[in-house]
Amino acid sequence: MNPTVGDLDGNADLIVEWTRRAAEAGAHLVAFPEMALTGYPVEDLALRQSFVDASRRMLERTARRLADEGLGRLPVVVGYLDRTDAPVRAGRPAPSAQNAVAWLHDGGVLIRSAKHHLPNYGVFDEYRYFARGDRLPVVRLHGVDVATVICEDLWQDGGPVGVARAARAGLLLVVNASPYERSKDDVRLELCARRAREAGCSLAYVNMVGGQDELVFDGDSVIVGPDGALLARAPQFVEHLLVADLDLPGADPSVREGGRPVDAGDGTAITVERRILSETPVPAYEPAPPERAEPLDDLGEVYAALVLGTRDYVRKNGFRSVILGLSGGIDSALVATIAADAIGPDNVHVVLLPSRYSSEHSVTDAEELVKRQGLHSRVVPIRGMVDAFEAELDLHGLAAENLQARIRANVWMGLSNESGHLVLTCGNKSELATGYSTLYGDSAGGFAPIKDVFKTMVWELARWRDGRVGQASPFWRALDVEPIPEEIILKEPSAELRPGQRDTDSLPPYDVLDPLLVDYVENDLGRDALVAAGHDPALVERVIRLVDVAEYKRRQYPPGPKITPKNFGRDRRLPVTNRWREPSGR
Amino acid sequence: MNPTVGDLDGNADLIVEWTRRAAEAGAHLVAFPEMALTGYPVEDLALRQSFVDASRRMLERTARRLADEGLGRLPVVVGYLDRTDAPVRAGRPAPSAQNAVAWLHDGGVLIRSAKHHLPNYGVFDEYRYFARGDRLPVVRLHGVDVATVICEDLWQDGGPVGVARAARAGLLLVVNASPYERSKDDVRLELCARRAREAGCSLAYVNMVGGQDELVFDGDSVIVGPDGALLARAPQFVEHLLVADLDLPGADPSVREGGRPVDAGDGTAITVERRILSETPVPAYEPAPPERAEPLDDLGEVYAALVLGTRDYVRKNGFRSVILGLSGGIDSALVATIAADAIGPDNVHVVLLPSRYSSEHSVTDAEELVKRQGLHSRVVPIRGMVDAFEAELDLHGLAAENLQARIRANVWMGLSNESGHLVLTCGNKSELATGYSTLYGDSAGGFAPIKDVFKTMVWELARWRDGRVGQASPFWRALDVEPIPEEIILKEPSAELRPGQRDTDSLPPYDVLDPLLVDYVENDLGRDALVAAGHDPALVERVIRLVDVAEYKRRQYPPGPKITPKNFGRDRRLPVTNRWREPSGR
Repeated sequence: MNPTVGDLDGNADLIVEWTRRAAEAGAHLVAFPEMALTGYPVEDLALRQSFVDASRRMLERTARRLADEGLGRLPVVVGYLDRTDAPVRAGRPAPSAQNAVAWLHDGGVLIRSAKHHLPNYGVFDEYRYFARGDRLPVVRLHGVDVATVICEDLWQDGGPVGVARAARAGLLLVVNASPYERSKDDVRLELCARRAREAGCSLAYVNMVGGQDELVFDGDSVIVGPDGALLARAPQFVEHLLVADLDLPGADPSVREGGRPVDAGDGTAITVERRILSETPVPAYEPAPPERAEPLDDLGEVYAALVLGTRDYVRKNGFRSVILGLSGGIDSALVATIAADAIGPDNVHVVLLPSRYSSEHSVTDAEELVKRQGLHSRVVPIRGMVDAFEAELDLHGLAAENLQARIRANVWMGLSNESGHLVLTCGNKSELATGYSTLYGDSAGGFAPIKDVFKTMVWELARWRDGRVGQASPFWRALDVEPIPEEIILKEPSAELRPGQRDTDSLPPYDVLDPLLVDYVENDLGRDALVAAGHDPALVERVIRLVDVAEYKRRQYPPGPKITPKNFGRDRRLPVTNRWREPSGR
Repeated sequence: MNPTVGDLDGNADLIVEWTRRAAEAGAHLVAFPEMALTGYPVEDLALRQSFVDASRRMLERTARRLADEGLGRLPVVVGYLDRTDAPVRAGRPAPSAQNAVAWLHDGGVLIRSAKHHLPNYGVFDEYRYFARGDRLPVVRLHGVDVATVICEDLWQDGGPVGVARAARAGLLLVVNASPYERSKDDVRLELCARRAREAGCSLAYVNMVGGQDELVFDGDSVIVGPDGALLARAPQFVEHLLVADLDLPGADPSVREGGRPVDAGDGTAITVERRILSETPVPAYEPAPPERAEPLDDLGEVYAALVLGTRDYVRKNGFRSVILGLSGGIDSALVATIAADAIGPDNVHVVLLPSRYSSEHSVTDAEELVKRQGLHSRVVPIRGMVDAFEAELDLHGLAAENLQARIRANVWMGLSNESGHLVLTCGNKSELATGYSTLYGDSAGGFAPIKDVFKTMVWELARWRDGRVGQASPFWRALDVEPIPEEIILKEPSAELRPGQRDTDSLPPYDVLDPLLVDYVENDLGRDALVAAGHDPALVERVIRLVDVAEYKRRQYPPGPKITPKNFGRDRRLPVTNRWREPSGR
């Protein structure tokens, strides 16, 4: 399911609705993602007592509501925000909130537990927010023992997975809010297979769907057998009820309810808490053939993530339409296409803002895209505004170039304020990395759909999207013509802020630049390691300097969907005031 | 000392220079702050292996250099960045870097240890960066056992302080990078007194000085006796050599070098590592009278923090001058004054940007301030620019108001790009909280000196600064007239973006608003608690909504010096996409 952070009512509605569908499909157990009731990540809301209280109350209200609506007999496992009275680690202040999961049954809460391993790397700050959990719930349902753990509990060695084996669980249920990154689906599937073998039982991995600020949760829930073999797989990026009939081992009937501490092998003890809902096995029946959705190809995944991230940011923040400047270049062309796929072309407004340096084809190419996709467009020449500034100010070089970019931003921000459109920002990751943008100019806006996409991939995505003519999915609409004109893909990149300007006046060619940026930004290699990896030493010096100096610009950049390990968002945190320069090797 | 993050060479120079001064003053031991060699906080630089390597190499080079310069016999305790081969906690990825401290002596490193308690709240993310240390160094110097711990080790119960007692240390030396917050100096002094009594020995607390992005380290190093009594105190906000003659107990001579694990009382064991530098006591001498600097008053502290934060942001980022828009209102008047105190009036450039809605007195009041303080000023009327936009766009209401604010920003950004001035942003905390500002307009710039200062305190600071006529300090220059004209302090606040506009058209009076913002933003109270605290229920609803909705604007706000527990910086992290509204109590 696709919850919205803070929307407890709406998220509870989704939980009830999908439980109803699961019941109609004959399910014996239904599971929702990590913190499905509150959305994820709630960040500092976890420190506000009124919010934690509201989450706890809503959990109990949802349990009653399920019973009131005739769904009380179906056990529902749901992630939510809880608190503990006894923080189990030091810390000043020690958080009392917990990233928790509960079994709802018969109108009440059967058992609660909390995440044991708290991730505190990349985009995660859970050591800031949560007290560690130290209980593993094992619930007997139709004679099968089901153990429940949360997300990171699966990723780290030691802890709940091993304890689940010691408890001889028949099914390990893992609730997750695991954000998308390229190729992470393969990593996750291998992890599930390995942990299933370690736990010695089948493993059901339930992931969240949807965009939340910079994160995009990709669903892709899977179930694997005790040998790690894939049994069922849900589609990516869409809410979905994955129904699977599993052949699960009966529990030892002599093991009764109660708690027993087990050495977790990570320096802590975890208490196995057993509850018995029902001992009687489900009568034999013919299992349905398992559903195994085929994952998208690599570019399809990325495109879907960008569309969903954009759609959810617009929708969840209460916007209905977007506006962006369409320059005739590839970046704004791709952003316009993503926007039209995300919220429909009728909600996409573009502005063409020609200056004295704009080439003829900039306008005609942009207009061709508008026509093919059915967007709303408007031409606002900026020449008169530039003249008015130049009448008062004597600006040269970069200052004069930036002036034009800022006047354009001023136009689209004005139209946004006048009509309530969200402004989309069109910068790509190569630009953000090197600072090749104007602060408060092209970098202005509310959401930046391709801020985590390197320029070389911008072209790949444009070609990939043009190759979907006639096809439809939840993330791209069927068109009878290529949405992005070939001319836009083929032209040499230029900011068109002075006569004859080309990106290569300031930057190396993108097919040389981008691999270096991957190694420096995403892989955190230092200078020597970059040179050892085969990058040109002089270029390494130059690019490191560009990237380091541009940190202050990135701080003020709008959010955008994250698709890589380091997206210039909360996953890469560097000081602005920083004199460190990678050693020159001299 | 005032290090700069990443400037290993410059920081090492400072360490050598201050060691020389300490030697000249006859010191037997000299101590520098936490991570003095790298600056603090280094954030994700701690994850880059080349940076950790460079810190380690520079530590050893500094030890050799001290010896080469004849300072090798004086033990020097210095904080730096190290790494461990064996991370002592789980985590994916488990950091290997350590927040470390070393004793340098005789050209080499005598002993290294690392921070045990890792803060991960407020502005701190140390669980993200560092592996925990589990050793307490106890070095015998002239027959006195000196134990060394780092910052948070003092703040949390359990751990190194208790182990220092068990080791019967004669002096507990604490190296710190503890950022300024209002009244935190009192809290720290009480903490030092309490921990000294717990450790059963004198305690020397060495703090960092200087601005680093949003943090301002305030120095204020102290030494307390075993009974907690204050023995010596350094001044605030300035680099300073605090020399103190202490009467310290001799160590038990039968205790020898080596390591011994001790239960730390926090679920871990800490190994006491003993080294013996010298057994012979210092010959008796007449102690010098202790230095006890008088702390500044509350507003003086705040003003000094804002000046130092601004000065260091400008200087450490390689700027020499600043530019800002001077409106004739109190906010920009105070910022201009802070800037002139920080870097000298000759480096402060102001622009007056009158529009058709600017009142006569806006320009004359601003010009009076310019004259009194000797700033560079320039008038750039924006009417022609506004007309040029309005010729192409039909904007109304807020959109038309924002246009003017953005045109002004475009002017000062253009002048900044042309002349290399850093742009100062003049918004106050009441504005940031409620979103009473224009994105890419008045909120644009590189550094925002008063972003953590509520409007009521802006007036207080202006009056306080005007009261310093004829006085000089490192943070305010002597003037023979009040720097801020009385008219500017007395006038009713207005954005002057439409005829007759007043702040109170949109906001409650600041003396009502600010206390509510303190409770909601800094104290994190929910709706019910705010009403219980005496705030008007209808106003609570309105202000909560304003604050929550404005989160997207604050994300793009420039950094500014932090002076409160929650400054809308890295210490308050809320999602932009967030449907949570405090319950209405219905």
